[in-house]
Formats: sequence, C-alpha cells, structure tokens
Amino acid sequence: MTAFLIVAPSWPTDIWRQAMMTAAPALDVRVWPDMGAPEDISYAGAWLPPPGVLAGLPRLRVMFSLGAGVDALLRDETLPRNVPLVRVSDADLTQRMSEYVVLQVLWHHRQQRRIDDNQRRKVWDSFATHAAGDLRVGVMGLGVLGSDAAGKLAMMGFAVAGWSRTRKQIAGVQSFAGWDEFDAFLARSDVLVSLLPATAETRGIINYATLRKLARNGPFGAPILINAGRGAQQVEADILRALDDGTLHAATLDVFETEPLPAHSPLWTHPRVVVTPHAAADSDPAAICRYIAGQIARLERCEALQNVVDRQRGY
Amino acid sequence: MTAFLIVAPSWPTDIWRQAMMTAAPALDVRVWPDMGAPEDISYAGAWLPPPGVLAGLPRLRVMFSLGAGVDALLRDETLPRNVPLVRVSDADLTQRMSEYVVLQVLWHHRQQRRIDDNQRRKVWDSFATHAAGDLRVGVMGLGVLGSDAAGKLAMMGFAVAGWSRTRKQIAGVQSFAGWDEFDAFLARSDVLVSLLPATAETRGIINYATLRKLARNGPFGAPILINAGRGAQQVEADILRALDDGTLHAATLDVFETEPLPAHSPLWTHPRVVVTPHAAADSDPAAICRYIAGQIARLERCEALQNVVDRQRGY
Repeated sequence: MTAFLIVAPSWPTDIWRQAMMTAAPALDVRVWPDMGAPEDISYAGAWLPPPGVLAGLPRLRVMFSLGAGVDALLRDETLPRNVPLVRVSDADLTQRMSEYVVLQVLWHHRQQRRIDDNQRRKVWDSFATHAAGDLRVGVMGLGVLGSDAAGKLAMMGFAVAGWSRTRKQIAGVQSFAGWDEFDAFLARSDVLVSLLPATAETRGIINYATLRKLARNGPFGAPILINAGRGAQQVEADILRALDDGTLHAATLDVFETEPLPAHSPLWTHPRVVVTPHAAADSDPAAICRYIAGQIARLERCEALQNVVDRQRGY
Repeated sequence: MTAFLIVAPSWPTDIWRQAMMTAAPALDVRVWPDMGAPEDISYAGAWLPPPGVLAGLPRLRVMFSLGAGVDALLRDETLPRNVPLVRVSDADLTQRMSEYVVLQVLWHHRQQRRIDDNQRRKVWDSFATHAAGDLRVGVMGLGVLGSDAAGKLAMMGFAVAGWSRTRKQIAGVQSFAGWDEFDAFLARSDVLVSLLPATAETRGIINYATLRKLARNGPFGAPILINAGRGAQQVEADILRALDDGTLHAATLDVFETEPLPAHSPLWTHPRVVVTPHAAADSDPAAICRYIAGQIARLERCEALQNVVDRQRGY
C-alpha cells in the first residue's frame, strides 16, 4: 500500500490525518514521527518540517505544502531538489483570503474604528465619508490569491491596481509589472495590500523607502498598509516609524517577523494597527486534502502535476 | 426662471444648494424658509419637510426625496397627493449601502470583535472559522439597494436568499416572495439583513416572533441581525430580549426607533451589538443633485419621470 506522510509538528495532526484518509482512502496515511519504514513513503504533505525529515525518504515522489505558500518548506535547506514540490491552490483558501482583504479594506475605508470608539462613548456622529472609487487600492502579488482579491475589491467599487512579476489581465484591475513599474504602482496606491509569496526577492520589500513612495493625496492623506503575505516581507521597525511620523495612516497586519507576535511588540497596542494572528486564510484540512488527493490521482493516471514550484523563482 | 426649493431643515443646506446649482445651472435654487414667492417654485427636494411647506406651493410639479426612502416625506400628512413624488436611485448611494452590508456580514462572519478583544489582551489565538458558504444570509427587501447587496454577498461566497413582495431573478440569490414564503425564508437564514422601505406593512416586522423563526443550526447557533433599513421596522425591546435569552447571537443596527439613539438605550453598551449612526449609505449631495437634474431634464423633454412613488404601496 502506498504511504502518505504528514510532517507538520507545529499543527494538530489528528484532523489532518483524518482529512487525508477521507480524501484518499486507498493511501496508508502516517504522521511523522510515527512513519514506519521510510522506503514505504511515496508522498508527503508538510508544514515547517524539521530539517532532514523529507530528505530521509528514499522513494519520495512528490512533496505537498499543507498551507498557502511554500516558504515553510523551502526553509529546510536539505529539502530534496529532485522531488517535485507542489503548492496548494484551493478555492476555499482563496475565498477566505479575499474575505480577509475585502473586510480589512472596507473596515479602514468606512472608518469602523472611529465608529466603534464613538459607540463606546455613546457619540452619535454621522461623519461624511468618501466614495469607494476615491480609494486606490494596490495589490502586490497577483497569483491565485491576489487575482481573486483584486477582482473582488474592484467589484466592491474600489479603484484597484495590481503589481506582479509579469503583466496580468484582470477585469477592472490596472496591471503594473516588474521592478521598472514598482514606483509608479506605489505612487497611485492609497492602500497597499501584500499577498506576495515569501521569496529572496520579496524579503523586506515593505520598508520605509517603499512606504514613502505610496500616494499621499488620497482620502486619508497618508496611506494604509495591509499585509496578509508573509512577515519576512515587512520591516516592523520601519512600519512603526512610518506610523509615528505620519508616513502611514494605519495598518492591518496578519503576519509578523516573529510569530506568534511577541508580547513586547508595540504593534499590539498601537492605536492605528489591527493585529490578526496569521489567520487571514485558514488551511481547511478537508479542502486541502481533497486537492492533494486530486493531484496524486493525476500522477497515477500519468498526467502532469499542477502548481509545481519553480525553486529558482521560489513559488 | 424656474425655481427649485430645498426643504431639509435638519440638514446642512449650504452644500445641497451648491450641489444643486452645479447640477442644474439653469434653475433658481432656493432654500426654505427663504423661498421667495411660493408660486415661483416648480420643483422641490425635501428631507423631513415641516408639515404644510410643500402643500403651500401652488405650482409644484415634482417633489424629490433627497435621501434613500420616502418615509421622511410621507410622514407629512399634508403632502400634496396630486404632485408626483420621486425617490432617489443613485449608484453612489447603492454602492455605499452594499459596502456597509458586506462589511458588517464579513465582520460578524470573521468574528472581528473576538480578534479585536484578543489584540487588546495581546492574545495570539488563531481560532478555526467556518467557510462563507456555510453562512446563510437572508436579505429582506430586493429593490435597487437590496438586489445589489445580495448580489455582492453572493459573489463573496455567502449562501444568499432574498425576500421581497414579488419574485426576483438575481444571480446566485434564492428568491422568496410574499408573506406565504416569509417563514421559509427566515428558517433558512443565519443572518437577517433588512433593507426594506418603511411602509405600513413593514412597521415592526423585526420583532421577537420574527427573530424566533430564524435558523438556529448555523455556524454560530443563534442568528445575527443587520438592520440598515429603517428604525420603525424594529422593536428594540424584542431585539434586546432576543440577545439576552440566546435567540439572537449578535446585531448590527444603523437605524433606531428614535434617532439619534438616546443615551439611556442599552443598545449602546451591549457587548454583542454594533451601533452605527444612520450612516450606512450617505446621501452624497453632488450625486443626488445630478440624479434630480437628470429627472427634471427628462420632464422638460416631455419624457416620463423614473422611480415615481406608488403612494398606496409606500415606495
């Protein structure tokens, strides 16, 4: 019997084991470290695998990421380079990410924190607000997640542009491509949303110089940052400096340089920061295991795998 | 010169006067009570007009509502019955209402108050959440506002139904029609959104009996109420009772029996109630005056007015 190994020591693996057994009843599903004979393992699903575990499986045919992004696997420097790595692309995860992005953009746009503060003080203040079309939202990263979020923001009436490595065609979304167009993309954005993958190229991209280049003539004067990509993309000291010197109006952060966010971080208590606990898009075990089972079925029908990671590019 | 009279004593009329002059430069725009000779006035735009003012204009050809709904005019029992009353239908207002509804549904769906409370206590708790497709949203009222909101909720992935006087065709939205189907509509709804007009028929419709009929097997157990229609539709004592005995999980209210909401109302401080100050959809003077100018131009070209209110029906 072909064996599938789950290697996700920081996650509750019982529900993943159950989900995988349901999605692929023909597989022998095992959970690291109880993996039995390494040579039984043909497939592995991993999240933050301890370095060396995947390299120690001599007959491994495919590695799957159990969550969005593959940086949690690529940080294992011993990860076998001759075994294909497949990233998850799941409609449920995509939808949850778009919910998060649309909720956070609407929340800032409609000044919900001001309304909440007014409620706390029993103040009835029906202040004037701007129209969605006056708020220019820029989405960095137009993969499956970014494209869906950008399209839904456009449908809600925001003026949306996206920035990606290659030019994209998304209804209602202006496309900027490559580093040559990065500054122009920033200059027209009142809200910067990052859904970039974590790669060598995107590390630290949300720094003070980047934030300075965002539009300063939008409805709130200074711009708003929403990072639901990866914490490695942001320089938190720069974000705090930008908030405090007026370069940045507000921020919603789902990801952090160190997770969980340490108690001493000033981000927790900053009045213009929303902290969410890396929960923008849950990995739903049932949906993701169905996706993985589908890819294994393709392989066993001798069809090509989908969403195989380009190791050079990093996603 | 044809005169247009603005009668909105509770609003800042300067910006309305400016907006109307910009939208229709050929009109002589006046603001009550400085109206000059009553017989000059051919058109009036009103919000909560003092009873008798509109009845005192002998040559009035059309009355326009300056905000969403016409109940603010119909409560004037002397309102001339032989002069057409036109309700505003404006893309900007529609979009703002949909922003509000989508924001509030997402906010409850994603348990943002729990996340805010966690942030305040520096608690990193990435709790599991349900999928949007598991949350059944029911929209009461499928006019221009309700149809747009229902369509956008469906596009965000929610399971959406609508209830209206006559059956409607909206992509992705299940249609329930008339009182015969009211209970079935409530029984399948985890979130009840009201965008009904204020009419004799809808007065007090959000009462304890109605809330008891909502679904009790959704993701949160008890249902959620969002009223962005009119305060006259809700019985606030019933909503508080339902919140406190577990019939209702939470509520977002933009409208109230008495506005501004009195300081002694327990709604202000209820931990599961969001209070917003009748601000779901601002009347943008520029957009609404453009709409009114367009209707006047139609009339002067001898074309039929649009959105004329059926006084019997009440909208």
